[in-house]
Amino acid sequence: MVDIEKVLEAHKKKTGKIEIVGRVAINTPQDLAIYYTPGVAEVSLVIKKDKSKAYDYTSKANTIAIISDGTRILGLGDVGPEAGLPVLEGKALLFKKFGGVDAVPICIGTNDEDEIVDFVKKIAPTFGAVVIEDIESPKSFSIVDRLSSDLDIPVFHDDQQGVGAVVVGALINALKLAGKKMKDVKIVINGSGSAGIGVVRLLNHIGVKKVYVVDTKGVIYNGREDGMNDVKRSIAKITNGEAMTGSLHDVVKGADVLIGISNKGAFSESMISSMAEKPIVFALANPDPEIGYANAKRAGAFIVATGASNVPNQVNNLLVFPGLMRGVLDTRAKVNYHILYSAAKAIANSVGAKLDTEMIVPDINDAKSASLLMGNVAKAVAKAAIDSGAARNRVDPAEVKKRARFLISRYSKIEKRISRL
Amino acid sequence: MVDIEKVLEAHKKKTGKIEIVGRVAINTPQDLAIYYTPGVAEVSLVIKKDKSKAYDYTSKANTIAIISDGTRILGLGDVGPEAGLPVLEGKALLFKKFGGVDAVPICIGTNDEDEIVDFVKKIAPTFGAVVIEDIESPKSFSIVDRLSSDLDIPVFHDDQQGVGAVVVGALINALKLAGKKMKDVKIVINGSGSAGIGVVRLLNHIGVKKVYVVDTKGVIYNGREDGMNDVKRSIAKITNGEAMTGSLHDVVKGADVLIGISNKGAFSESMISSMAEKPIVFALANPDPEIGYANAKRAGAFIVATGASNVPNQVNNLLVFPGLMRGVLDTRAKVNYHILYSAAKAIANSVGAKLDTEMIVPDINDAKSASLLMGNVAKAVAKAAIDSGAARNRVDPAEVKKRARFLISRYSKIEKRISRL
Repeated sequence: MVDIEKVLEAHKKKTGKIEIVGRVAINTPQDLAIYYTPGVAEVSLVIKKDKSKAYDYTSKANTIAIISDGTRILGLGDVGPEAGLPVLEGKALLFKKFGGVDAVPICIGTNDEDEIVDFVKKIAPTFGAVVIEDIESPKSFSIVDRLSSDLDIPVFHDDQQGVGAVVVGALINALKLAGKKMKDVKIVINGSGSAGIGVVRLLNHIGVKKVYVVDTKGVIYNGREDGMNDVKRSIAKITNGEAMTGSLHDVVKGADVLIGISNKGAFSESMISSMAEKPIVFALANPDPEIGYANAKRAGAFIVATGASNVPNQVNNLLVFPGLMRGVLDTRAKVNYHILYSAAKAIANSVGAKLDTEMIVPDINDAKSASLLMGNVAKAVAKAAIDSGAARNRVDPAEVKKRARFLISRYSKIEKRISRL
Repeated sequence: MVDIEKVLEAHKKKTGKIEIVGRVAINTPQDLAIYYTPGVAEVSLVIKKDKSKAYDYTSKANTIAIISDGTRILGLGDVGPEAGLPVLEGKALLFKKFGGVDAVPICIGTNDEDEIVDFVKKIAPTFGAVVIEDIESPKSFSIVDRLSSDLDIPVFHDDQQGVGAVVVGALINALKLAGKKMKDVKIVINGSGSAGIGVVRLLNHIGVKKVYVVDTKGVIYNGREDGMNDVKRSIAKITNGEAMTGSLHDVVKGADVLIGISNKGAFSESMISSMAEKPIVFALANPDPEIGYANAKRAGAFIVATGASNVPNQVNNLLVFPGLMRGVLDTRAKVNYHILYSAAKAIANSVGAKLDTEMIVPDINDAKSASLLMGNVAKAVAKAAIDSGAARNRVDPAEVKKRARFLISRYSKIEKRISRL
């Protein structure tokens, strides 16, 4: 689908995808005296007295670190820190384009959990938030949990929390079209990595009871011993209430929703045929889904979503992470489930009158709807941050939305200009 | 000289001074597939096989980290990491404007030497070079020495090495005008911080014998016990051959050159009167010099240089760090004395026909001469890197110069545009 030579050439042409520029111009000795020495000393003194002033006078307020150890880059496994860079740079591009957020990719030369936590704590004073990215699970969960509790800046785990929000958002609309209620449906999730766990945790938060998680050893149940870890044990306690055992094939029977965040070809047409009426199938493995869009439809799926852009219903965490980060940055709020669920609802609501089995989430490739979506998500996140008491900066959510849309429109001017130079 | 309110307002207006943008534009699903998933996986795989390919396909090649613990920010002492941010952001602006270098300011929450070294080693895979900035001495020296030896990317200590290069560069021209030879003159340096040590070390490298370093306890000599540390002990061995004792007042008698990198008012007119004929005085303390330009002239100084932009001869490390970094980034060379001395000579030579007692270094405030200077320094550094065997990437020095000037001109277009948005 994508030509390898073209990809390599595009990356080589400008030697990478991001760069650092000034928000201000330096033209005269006076400019230098204001923005550098001796003037800048006055700014340092103000921040020395009250370090929260860094949010007013430095780029900290809008700058995040995307941190990875390169152990779970895309579906490639452990590729090392340098090979993680192109992926993180791509993500930084998207944070800016869709959220107006300045993101610094940082791939580090250790994959020891304690060392990663320690590293992030040391780098935290520089940034307004931290994104933990493409770190293998279950290590990623404890890293995120430890940092979320110890740092005073937002910590976001897109692979888990972002996916959770976008999947639940898409599910809200899919169920609406199917005429089913979230609390009644049986949901099967295939995959217990960061993404699967993120979906389960958010579903649990909103009170969905009939959830089943399947991994390579079959359905997860309380008391299972094979292939378990702390995170899976915690998941076993909040899913599969009757502690049923069996394979994906067994558990999918009669399910209303089948969500795959696993691997290519994991779903068969017969599985879909065995589901309840109006089956909803999210086959989100990337780049190749658990079952193709057309095949799933042929097997009787009422709604199908994948991660691909060339068929309807592209469910991609890009729908959420820029707007969500905009919202938590502006409110300086630690990420919580209320925030994630609000983001999910904002995604669902942003589809508006276009809602259809072939349009359950907004089209990110349409600039206008993307900007509207991000503004809505940012606003919803800001409101949830304030309502849940997480906001350290109680800004007007409407202002956050306005700012999101302004920054997106501002960047489109920069993007056009720079890409030509 | 600079209005505090104006400085604060300028910093607050855009909430900081730098931002991160794309070198490429994302307009279509195809762009997304090339620059993000699934295409970017191909880039990761290429780098996984050979991590040096990160220099071809990612921003690593042109991106550096400026790292500080906030313990020696300007003349302010230990202000903490957050208060170091505005200074490092200013420096990042200048790296870009004058060298086309993308610099990420990183202020870290530890001031323990081992922890800083450990932190920098972990972050190194992401960057093409590291600048150690505004860390208190003598800790800064051992940090730089340890990192320079352990990392495979250039490590630059501007406070030491940059100042050394620019002072020696200015001195080359001052001595030429005075008709004196570097190897014959008596040089007194007041100040034994990073800057003073940087000057001494470079003078020692080029074989200057009659050098005396003075600190608050008087002249440093081999065997002195008061207020010494490892670095000062190493300096005592390469200066003050006759192990003379005494105060600045004593040692400055008959000196040809007096260099202050110390503090306001440290030099008196009578000190200058006691020097040899055609005395050269560099009073480089910032923002207030050891003696004012006019006072030093009145006392008989043949040439006076300060750090200020409102009198002739502004000796500022801005003359060297962007061009030097351009040169070491492009050649991937570890910084050595040959490189620093070549940069010094390039600064001296860049003055050209304008050489005069009131113009011993190029005028950084003139855009044309700044671009020429940076190109010359980058070229000289690249050549020295190759000649000394430090270059891991043997590019044509003439190409490095061309690239420096292209990047400076390119950025001036970006700077203009963005500062208006």
